[in-house]
Amino acid sequence: MTVSGSNVGVPPLETIKGMSGLEYMRGIVEGRLPAPPISATLGFAVTEVDAGLAVFTMTPGFRHYNPLGTVHGGVAATLLDSCMGCAVHTRLEAGIGYTTLEFKVNLVRPITDTTGLIRAEGRTLHVGRRSATAEGRIVDANGALLAHGTTTCLVFPL
Amino acid sequence: MTVSGSNVGVPPLETIKGMSGLEYMRGIVEGRLPAPPISATLGFAVTEVDAGLAVFTMTPGFRHYNPLGTVHGGVAATLLDSCMGCAVHTRLEAGIGYTTLEFKVNLVRPITDTTGLIRAEGRTLHVGRRSATAEGRIVDANGALLAHGTTTCLVFPL
Amino acid sequence: MTVSGSNVGVPPLETIKGMSGLEYMRGIVEGRLPAPPISATLGFAVTEVDAGLAVFTMTPGFRHYNPLGTVHGGVAATLLDSCMGCAVHTRLEAGIGYTTLEFKVNLVRPITDTTGLIRAEGRTLHVGRRSATAEGRIVDANGALLAHGTTTCLVFPL
Amino acid sequence: MTVSGSNVGVPPLETIKGMSGLEYMRGIVEGRLPAPPISATLGFAVTEVDAGLAVFTMTPGFRHYNPLGTVHGGVAATLLDSCMGCAVHTRLEAGIGYTTLEFKVNLVRPITDTTGLIRAEGRTLHVGRRSATAEGRIVDANGALLAHGTTTCLVFPL
Repeated sequence: MTVSGSNVGVPPLETIKGMSGLEYMRGIVEGRLPAPPISATLGFAVTEVDAGLAVFTMTPGFRHYNPLGTVHGGVAATLLDSCMGCAVHTRLEAGIGYTTLEFKVNLVRPITDTTGLIRAEGRTLHVGRRSATAEGRIVDANGALLAHGTTTCLVFPL
Repeated sequence: MTVSGSNVGVPPLETIKGMSGLEYMRGIVEGRLPAPPISATLGFAVTEVDAGLAVFTMTPGFRHYNPLGTVHGGVAATLLDSCMGCAVHTRLEAGIGYTTLEFKVNLVRPITDTTGLIRAEGRTLHVGRRSATAEGRIVDANGALLAHGTTTCLVFPL
Repeated sequence: MTVSGSNVGVPPLETIKGMSGLEYMRGIVEGRLPAPPISATLGFAVTEVDAGLAVFTMTPGFRHYNPLGTVHGGVAATLLDSCMGCAVHTRLEAGIGYTTLEFKVNLVRPITDTTGLIRAEGRTLHVGRRSATAEGRIVDANGALLAHGTTTCLVFPL
Repeated sequence: MTVSGSNVGVPPLETIKGMSGLEYMRGIVEGRLPAPPISATLGFAVTEVDAGLAVFTMTPGFRHYNPLGTVHGGVAATLLDSCMGCAVHTRLEAGIGYTTLEFKVNLVRPITDTTGLIRAEGRTLHVGRRSATAEGRIVDANGALLAHGTTTCLVFPL
């Protein structure tokens, strides 16, 4: 099911099941598979994946603002959940699925519409047969730390 | 600064500083103050506030989907960060500000485009002079728990 | 394996497997089963359990102090991990085990050797086939909130 | 106030206030200042500190066991809270204090009385004027990751 006129959507579950997580994520990075709808809605993209690593980028704008005049913490949370969950996915074989049980986010510097391009990097910490954990960091173009987080995922046969 | 043609935007900082958090949040609920841009971008709204309480509602759709075919965890995180942070805000006098230091989210049931209207309720747990905490829950129309979280905020004079 | 001269120890795994979590926890509350070693080392006890609920009590002292002259946050964490994990356990049938994947703790008021008896109450939020979550609160004798937390557990057949 | 016959206790607040965090922590590492009571009660020690770093070690035993026959998660939490909080302390000047607002812990491999010496390393992620964050990891003698966590601290003038 894809949104017409753009490469946005979600492949059939059978397609996802038949690929390793790294193959699936590489398909999105390289445009062979559609980008997920949320990335079009909020305006971010996955730009790099490797075994245990996933990187997303975004340029926050006024449309991401909270009632207090900075970018909503939920935007950083969305990027961190993305990069941490996808980092876990890159370590899973075909036929193995995962779901995010929980994640937590620290917001250490404000993000505004003048921050420019931000980069969210997720890295796995532990990948077991039944659960996995990862950490993530959001930095600006100068490498200043803006937010960081960790996640706990459930791992299971599909 | 508001987006033309709709009541979306962020009031001047002086307006925010001059009101208690409860007055400010009531202004948004009642449409006298603009809704924040992120709520238009993602499609959610604050519907109820009281001292120590803030409630948001949303109907998730396909445009909120992650690469695995369910609503992205960042959407639940955005709702929880909103309801928990605003619950803290409702307990702060005029001239007192807050910022979210961290929040954590547990995703306990999948949210899809057939879940229907969801409701995020934030309640304060502790409001001190220098920090505050709150908890939040997202439930569906039948009251089933979909996600829950907690937050830690810094409290300071503006 | 019990410590001689006191009802402290850990029953054989077969004993644990053969009982529901509620039966097992009731055995400890009523002294028919040994209290775990950590509870003797730190000085706390489980005093009440029910389906989805576990309560622990303790009187903190100088021997629990950190380098800054208050009770170490790890003591509150131990009580919260105990009451939240055991609350989950009370909802599991015989033959079903659990392990704590993660927990988080907020420390909202200092605990000292003059605080007196404190009470940690854990309650389940969600118990599924593969994972469970719970929340916990520590209060003093006047009901003032001292600390709170949440946990995520993995649930599996033994 | 120290426990007679051993170098365990808490120095007067004036002593703590007059030293930078790094000086204070070095005093404990080198035995010029007393170790905190909790470290004697549970059996752990700080072994190394530097600006932004604190390392603790411990050999877990049966007396740290939970009702399920492994080391209680609160023990890992105590080590992580220690190494993360002290890492923050090492970055604070004399006259600046801190308190832990929250911490979270992931338990990724079981710890037992055969695990041997474990090492908890805390490192600062962000140290600001009003708040600070740090991360921590517990590893065994082979470097295998046993647990990890993050913390959020409040920073303030004493």
